[in-house]
Amino acid sequence: MPILIGADVGGSKTAVGVSEGGDVLVRVEGPGAAVRPGRSLASAGVIAEVVRRALAGIGRLSGDVLLVGAAGAGRDPERSELARALRGENVAPRVVVTTDIEVALAGAFETGPGIVVSAGTGSIAVGRDATGAHRRIGGYGWQMGDEGSGYAIGRAALGAVSRALDGRSPRTALRDRILWATRSPDFDSLVRWAASASPSELAGLAPHVLDVAAEGDPLAQGIGDYAARELSQLAICLLPLVEADPPIGVALTGGLLADDRPLRRSVLARLREESGLRPIDAPVDAVVGALRLAAASIRDP
Amino acid sequence: MPILIGADVGGSKTAVGVSEGGDVLVRVEGPGAAVRPGRSLASAGVIAEVVRRALAGIGRLSGDVLLVGAAGAGRDPERSELARALRGENVAPRVVVTTDIEVALAGAFETGPGIVVSAGTGSIAVGRDATGAHRRIGGYGWQMGDEGSGYAIGRAALGAVSRALDGRSPRTALRDRILWATRSPDFDSLVRWAASASPSELAGLAPHVLDVAAEGDPLAQGIGDYAARELSQLAICLLPLVEADPPIGVALTGGLLADDRPLRRSVLARLREESGLRPIDAPVDAVVGALRLAAASIRDP
Repeated sequence: MPILIGADVGGSKTAVGVSEGGDVLVRVEGPGAAVRPGRSLASAGVIAEVVRRALAGIGRLSGDVLLVGAAGAGRDPERSELARALRGENVAPRVVVTTDIEVALAGAFETGPGIVVSAGTGSIAVGRDATGAHRRIGGYGWQMGDEGSGYAIGRAALGAVSRALDGRSPRTALRDRILWATRSPDFDSLVRWAASASPSELAGLAPHVLDVAAEGDPLAQGIGDYAARELSQLAICLLPLVEADPPIGVALTGGLLADDRPLRRSVLARLREESGLRPIDAPVDAVVGALRLAAASIRDP
Repeated sequence: MPILIGADVGGSKTAVGVSEGGDVLVRVEGPGAAVRPGRSLASAGVIAEVVRRALAGIGRLSGDVLLVGAAGAGRDPERSELARALRGENVAPRVVVTTDIEVALAGAFETGPGIVVSAGTGSIAVGRDATGAHRRIGGYGWQMGDEGSGYAIGRAALGAVSRALDGRSPRTALRDRILWATRSPDFDSLVRWAASASPSELAGLAPHVLDVAAEGDPLAQGIGDYAARELSQLAICLLPLVEADPPIGVALTGGLLADDRPLRRSVLARLREESGLRPIDAPVDAVVGALRLAAASIRDP
């Protein structure tokens, strides 16, 4: 039986599984390795390192097929760069690269129709219809889109803190929490921090914002409500574009929508109000999805 | 009579004037030199170069006082770094650094009370009351604030273009104009451009957005209206904080609010609806303001 390797690669975590004959033999996690334009060698190095640790768990140096679903691999140049770099790592003679969303779809719905909403630093919804065709909404990056994403939540919180200072917004507990989270001794230091903070650093504020919301701060709650609305809208806007018999299943994935997060609960509640959708509360096993796609790549090469 | 040098330093333009005995003898313009944290040597080099060209106009190598009002010099560390770097340029024995807003206030209102709203890559409003005390609203940078700024307009346009692609927004003429302005052959190239474009590159889209608005595109008009509302709100929110007899004068400055720009007209129209404010339609001569502050720095050292 061929040895299949499946990898789900996000911005903050890389999860790898190895299977043989349908059984998952080992699972390993490592650091994030999301693809950025021109940086695919770095991503490939991290992914290969996690894959080697997984293979070591069954006493092997290589497998037969490596299927990688990576955040940031939505466009051809990044996808083929990453595939080339991974082939150079010699962990499998056959390497297939697709997106993190593809492996989530395969994990949630095997080959059937369905929608996956993903929210981490960025946000996107992808639907697959009964013929296998894909449609997507969102996912255009932190400066063009990513509505309701971790970046958008962090940015909204910074705006609320600065408007509160001016008296343009009510006082908010976000101020002290964000000063603390960014290790800023005062507001001026926060202004300097924000001027050069990366999208993922801003997204790192989102869990704090949602905590402050859970503690009852009205401005933070407003930001959380806005994010839940934007994320559920991604799936709702996709509905008329996905040709399949309703209700269409919707699965949630990404760090911002992980189990037991309040944001996950409010997105699910909003999705339940839409009769054409069937929200799925169970977590998505994207590593199993990657292994399913690896098996499919042997059947239909 | 002492020779005074006044400089108004923005992100895209540095304007310098030299005066003696109250007469402006020469005016020169050069490239922008807005201050960024840790980059004050580069700013000082550009400013000194423009100052030397101005001094050459009257056959001098140095003057007596250099007063610089620079964008980005709102906080102490940047201000003192820039002053130190400028002293090393030896164009005047006395160097004073303040903000571009201070020199605009002095240009528009001499020492009297008034409000200046400035919009370029960023946005801010600063008011000075009858006692000389200052209050500000906004100006916290592209990720924390800068509501209605060039950056905010460019960002809103990118969002409109991506939502139109998804069918979440109506079609908009912004799409073709922004593809053209960013030299993107297709939407995917625009997504890549936006992922790494700087705040000033995004702000560079604003004039295109306002052009498309003037040509009748409803989405672009919505973005222009939003910016006009945000910029006029900066002054309106400042009104109760500035202790002076109403109506308080409001002057507009910065590239986005230059003469004959439609955005300038709509901000003025909104400000006119506020009885406590007296909008001033004339352009602000910030170089004259810098020279006034240079003269005052001799009187009150």
